[in-house]
Amino acid sequence: MPTALAPVPHLTTALSGPLLQLEQTLLDRAADIEAWFRASFRETPAPFYCSVDLRNAGFKLAPVDTNLFPAGFNNLNPAFEALCVQALQIAIERVCPTAKGVLLVPENHTRNKFYLENIATLHGLIRKAGFNVHIGSLLPDLKAPQQIRLDSGRELTLEPLEREGQALKVDGFTPCSVLLNNDLSGGIPEILKGIEQPIMPPLALGWHARLKSQHFALYREITTEFGELLDLDPWLVDPLFRNCGEINFMKREGEECLVANVELLLADIRAKYAEYGVKEKPFAIVKAEAGTYGMGVMTVHSAEDVRNLNRDARKKMAATKEGKEVTGAIIQEGVYTCETWGEDRATAEPVVYMIDHHVVGGFYRVHGGRSNQESLNAPGAHFQMLAFEAACSHPDPTCGPHEHPNRFYAYGVVARLALLAAAREIAASSKI
Amino acid sequence: MPTALAPVPHLTTALSGPLLQLEQTLLDRAADIEAWFRASFRETPAPFYCSVDLRNAGFKLAPVDTNLFPAGFNNLNPAFEALCVQALQIAIERVCPTAKGVLLVPENHTRNKFYLENIATLHGLIRKAGFNVHIGSLLPDLKAPQQIRLDSGRELTLEPLEREGQALKVDGFTPCSVLLNNDLSGGIPEILKGIEQPIMPPLALGWHARLKSQHFALYREITTEFGELLDLDPWLVDPLFRNCGEINFMKREGEECLVANVELLLADIRAKYAEYGVKEKPFAIVKAEAGTYGMGVMTVHSAEDVRNLNRDARKKMAATKEGKEVTGAIIQEGVYTCETWGEDRATAEPVVYMIDHHVVGGFYRVHGGRSNQESLNAPGAHFQMLAFEAACSHPDPTCGPHEHPNRFYAYGVVARLALLAAAREIAASSKI
Repeated sequence: MPTALAPVPHLTTALSGPLLQLEQTLLDRAADIEAWFRASFRETPAPFYCSVDLRNAGFKLAPVDTNLFPAGFNNLNPAFEALCVQALQIAIERVCPTAKGVLLVPENHTRNKFYLENIATLHGLIRKAGFNVHIGSLLPDLKAPQQIRLDSGRELTLEPLEREGQALKVDGFTPCSVLLNNDLSGGIPEILKGIEQPIMPPLALGWHARLKSQHFALYREITTEFGELLDLDPWLVDPLFRNCGEINFMKREGEECLVANVELLLADIRAKYAEYGVKEKPFAIVKAEAGTYGMGVMTVHSAEDVRNLNRDARKKMAATKEGKEVTGAIIQEGVYTCETWGEDRATAEPVVYMIDHHVVGGFYRVHGGRSNQESLNAPGAHFQMLAFEAACSHPDPTCGPHEHPNRFYAYGVVARLALLAAAREIAASSKI
Repeated sequence: MPTALAPVPHLTTALSGPLLQLEQTLLDRAADIEAWFRASFRETPAPFYCSVDLRNAGFKLAPVDTNLFPAGFNNLNPAFEALCVQALQIAIERVCPTAKGVLLVPENHTRNKFYLENIATLHGLIRKAGFNVHIGSLLPDLKAPQQIRLDSGRELTLEPLEREGQALKVDGFTPCSVLLNNDLSGGIPEILKGIEQPIMPPLALGWHARLKSQHFALYREITTEFGELLDLDPWLVDPLFRNCGEINFMKREGEECLVANVELLLADIRAKYAEYGVKEKPFAIVKAEAGTYGMGVMTVHSAEDVRNLNRDARKKMAATKEGKEVTGAIIQEGVYTCETWGEDRATAEPVVYMIDHHVVGGFYRVHGGRSNQESLNAPGAHFQMLAFEAACSHPDPTCGPHEHPNRFYAYGVVARLALLAAAREIAASSKI
């Protein structure tokens, strides 16, 4: 079995009691959970693809970030390939039942070799799923196809994205649908507006418009339903949060909202920790509403931490990807990660990948320079491939809840709860 | 990559020229082929599951048997598990979008431990796909649940199949759908008639009614379309055949039809061999129309072979599974297999498994005591698991057509052509 072949991360066992109960519940009720997911995704179809960052604190297991334009497909174990290909076939044939061309629109950072490896992997997977695929770049100064040789030895061809009437194309190739791997942090480019081909995920879900607070509000509704289904406290899978609408870190505008909410949130976490006998110190994560790439994220242990931010820290919070100014912030319950990787016990957190409503793989994000109370999505992180393809998508009832396949099943369940929240974001956006 | 981890069978290269051309065409046109499959399976949905026996003669690659009640899931590589589970989720959620219970109805041969291992694997896969599953047995003298311990260490519980009104159930469990792994060779049992739950595959496709000649007639239509799509001679993937309606081997009734058709078929094969410069000797396979388990199959090289059948051979042809009398026969072009396994070059043929329209795995059937002109589906065969899960479902354009992933892609394509013929059988049966 693949799980026996690959290393799995060391799990700190000190706090593992309550999580085992959660895992056991998920295992015992797997058929109910899966039926509920089927019904839920039938009502609100899943996004085309998604990755979810999880934090496993031992006493709770929760998503902290849900990415609708996932990079990192190159970090998945090659053993996941067939699973990804099959899921892509299912996802694309919903949009293009009989056609055969897909246009992939990537981010513009062509100097990020890691990101380009992701695009090469995604391109290869879609091709293996039986579709013709071209990469249509938004780079303004790209006038002709550009070939890029990657460190992996693969070659990538970026072609200038063109428009003909209401259709997107590249030279000689008009696709039936457009797959965005560009999170639109800088807004919707003119060329993408008013296009008749289906665009996945929908433009409205780009980071120019998406709000973390909306995602986690919908996530709360979902975990409430899920908690009722399984008769468990939704907090075990749900990070508490509060949000502030208008913040300007540089001008210190909205700071009082932030300070007040940090205090309220820490009090709520303290109460929950007391209820469950958790001895750890509560903390909160302040994040830009539209932040990506781990930018605009900080850990705070008290309201004082917010008041005492120095100029450098304010500057970091003020600007996220593509220099977008922060105008709102979410204050989220900090979830410890009790997972570590390797001999030197580097801090680790699982990232789960989904295509349509299927779990297709994942990896551990590992950061030796960050504590178990910090975001690991930062320079210096590396990725540990995991061979949990035979596990994360389904439980193995013949082994106990502490066994790896079943821990991964729990990861897959919680990741899909976040996926469902994203599905409801899409549904909500189409109603506007 | 999995293909590097597992042995793949030795391919006799003497006749490999034309097949490489076929494989290259399939690779070059993969996006067209996949789009055509998508459109075709949209028009006629695929059966729930299916296995196809292929013969790779080097100069042609063709299906020789299409099984709509596949056993042998226990012979698939465990590396295929996640792929099977995902495909089962897709297939079952079409029938039971929100419900969660499946009833598996197996064959009655409880003394065949290999078959029971298949049922245990299928049961486990459906459970891992997130469904409650019980095994409802048709055994007439089973009055209470029976636990069977298998050599693999697994336990299987057979429960007496019951009926309540128009619904099938076992004690305390009413499923939303019924999955048949019983090929109905003995006819449709009363208890299965007039049931309101969906039964997969449909009862009309049982071997009490199904005709090999209908399957291969529909297969011919499909390979004609496929040949037009790719501009290739359908014969490269299609075994010629003729059929006789009324045969009684013991009474020698219908023998003249058989003799005449064997002569005509051998002449047709001879012409094709001449066209392609094939030096081998043509042969034909005579099969019972409704034969299963490799029963009622013989190899003939001339009309004389039919005339000179001895009493034993007649007896073998006269009765197939559950003693059903043969009433029709198909005379099929014999397809050499040029694949061998191991040092002693045992004769081998690939078997490809599909769930819904997805290729989910396969293995080689190997028989040391049979020649490359005989059916290998006979006592003494064994199965070699293959790790071509990363391959059979999709081509790898970065390696040549002779590489294993691409040979397996060709197998997956031809197997799906047979699957499509089965889909059209189902569509035809529902029109009656």
